[in-house]
Amino acid sequence: MNDLLIIGTGLLGTSLGLALRDTGIRVHLDDPSPTALALARDLGAGEPLTPQTRPDLVVVAAPPDVTAEVVIRALRTWPEAVVTDVASVKDAVLTAVAEQTSAAEAARYVGSHPMAGRERSGAVSARGDLFQGRTWVICPHPGVDGQAPARVREVAAAVGAAPVEMGAAEHDHAVAAVSHTPQVAASLVAARLRDLDENAVALAGQGLRDVTRIAESDPMLWTQILAGNAQAVLPVLDALAGDLDAVRAGLRSLVDGPPEGPGARAALAGAIANGQAGHARIPGKHGAPPTAYLSLVVVLPDRPGQLADLFSDIGGAGVNLEDVRLDHVEGADVGLAELWVVPAALEPLQEALSAAGWRVHT
Amino acid sequence: MNDLLIIGTGLLGTSLGLALRDTGIRVHLDDPSPTALALARDLGAGEPLTPQTRPDLVVVAAPPDVTAEVVIRALRTWPEAVVTDVASVKDAVLTAVAEQTSAAEAARYVGSHPMAGRERSGAVSARGDLFQGRTWVICPHPGVDGQAPARVREVAAAVGAAPVEMGAAEHDHAVAAVSHTPQVAASLVAARLRDLDENAVALAGQGLRDVTRIAESDPMLWTQILAGNAQAVLPVLDALAGDLDAVRAGLRSLVDGPPEGPGARAALAGAIANGQAGHARIPGKHGAPPTAYLSLVVVLPDRPGQLADLFSDIGGAGVNLEDVRLDHVEGADVGLAELWVVPAALEPLQEALSAAGWRVHT
Repeated sequence: MNDLLIIGTGLLGTSLGLALRDTGIRVHLDDPSPTALALARDLGAGEPLTPQTRPDLVVVAAPPDVTAEVVIRALRTWPEAVVTDVASVKDAVLTAVAEQTSAAEAARYVGSHPMAGRERSGAVSARGDLFQGRTWVICPHPGVDGQAPARVREVAAAVGAAPVEMGAAEHDHAVAAVSHTPQVAASLVAARLRDLDENAVALAGQGLRDVTRIAESDPMLWTQILAGNAQAVLPVLDALAGDLDAVRAGLRSLVDGPPEGPGARAALAGAIANGQAGHARIPGKHGAPPTAYLSLVVVLPDRPGQLADLFSDIGGAGVNLEDVRLDHVEGADVGLAELWVVPAALEPLQEALSAAGWRVHT
Repeated sequence: MNDLLIIGTGLLGTSLGLALRDTGIRVHLDDPSPTALALARDLGAGEPLTPQTRPDLVVVAAPPDVTAEVVIRALRTWPEAVVTDVASVKDAVLTAVAEQTSAAEAARYVGSHPMAGRERSGAVSARGDLFQGRTWVICPHPGVDGQAPARVREVAAAVGAAPVEMGAAEHDHAVAAVSHTPQVAASLVAARLRDLDENAVALAGQGLRDVTRIAESDPMLWTQILAGNAQAVLPVLDALAGDLDAVRAGLRSLVDGPPEGPGARAALAGAIANGQAGHARIPGKHGAPPTAYLSLVVVLPDRPGQLADLFSDIGGAGVNLEDVRLDHVEGADVGLAELWVVPAALEPLQEALSAAGWRVHT
């Protein structure tokens, strides 16, 4: 591949241009906003499109609600090019392309979704390593020409992403459960804090912080994502609402009792047990099968240098950490660092840290 | 205070006994299980209760569903003692005590809730520093004798916890929103993964991991907690279900359209925006008001020693980290460390890490 055109110089488009520098692929840029286009060029993401440009691959990185339209226009404007898009919802784009283009045009389209992003948007937030190590989902359809997914694979590999193939509908159902539903749940839990008493909010602990972290996300972007994937998100939220109703019915029976209705406590226990079972299916890092990581807790005074000393000692023990969590504590100047490791590393790490004088607990 | 009796030698009771060693307070232990009692004693949590024991304070650390009964028995058995309990739901215990004891007996009772715990339970998981830096909520009631909260404060201070006073009902409404509702939401989101296709679960990212981390919790304990606080949890879940219904109605109108119903997208945007507003109220560490922390991202090869080097360099920069998050990436052997600091520390940290050769991004 020689020439690649990126349409849309926001966070993803500009990051892709930056990531492709020094790969030998010539990057051309287009954007309806001359200001956004000039900024992306100044950042070094590529050169503006000219009438002479003949792209081998067009990557549409437009907002979700105009993606299909821009893809269709690109298929007609460059009849030799493969066209892909990077929107986070895939089936609606494919359907629009299938309905509004010829079979020959549709054969040159393949949707994709690099699973990378940031809370901040726009070219100013772009990073050349945004795709490094991320999954890049490619969604071939029955009528696709084999070279279309191949070109997207080539780009994914060039920017350090790991290409994975699945159907558009399969992709949309997957992200509905693993991304869009968690976003809705986090936002709804966080919304309950809006009118809460100050003293009550002050009791917030790490559990609440974890559950609501992604509630910071941008409402406009998420409106487009949820609206674009309404078909797949709705049944997941319906099922979640059904489970929630069972919990509420159990609680109501306890509130209205005694005697409590049959199965009131079973409804509560069932919800928590089903959550345990679902949680156990989340894979570990690097796509490895789930591993039962074990953790150590280290007590540390909350001041500069402590973490440096701790991680020095961890490095000295030759142990690879799977995760770290700093536990912030209300009303005191000590903290806890929870260190997650594979089971075999637990004892060596504990011994090394204890020997180095740390207060360690398993 | 000279003599303290702990009834119930599980995680909390045993940890309290361990925490009070070397404080000058004599700790006596009791538990219906002779095995559990012997284990706690062997761990050094205290000495078994004798007929001669005259406690100044009795701490009931029994399972939630028998707490009230054990508190009432303790008030009668030791007519000179103050009695508290450490259950995570407070109003039901207070109501039972008020109904089933005399005013003089009830005056010696004050409920409390040290906000400390672990995923694992039992004396074997006990830790002497479990309460270090944690909030210990004390719930005085109108008829309480002033010395009752004072004795609990004394114990809280002795084990390094920060005592905070609020009414029992106020406490229960607070934990319904900041602890019990997030638990239910995390479990319900995780439950959606149970029957999900393997390929779909493989797309799980950090957002899902954060939202569902506490879904690992114990179903039996949480059944007791939710049942014990049904009165306060139900209205929060009802309100959450109402918000969820609005999102589902918006999605359904999009699925059934075109034309979509009025306000379909506004319902989605409203849910996400309300979540943003609620999330912004969560206080920062150490009970300080919320601070807009800023973050740096450092790219690091995923192998032993890298984190040690990184934290050495952070220590060298003299910067205090507010939080750390290791980002696991699917299908690749690189990782990202996101470092959160107060705004004033961002630039110095960035410069120091760049100078030390790290790939740093803001």
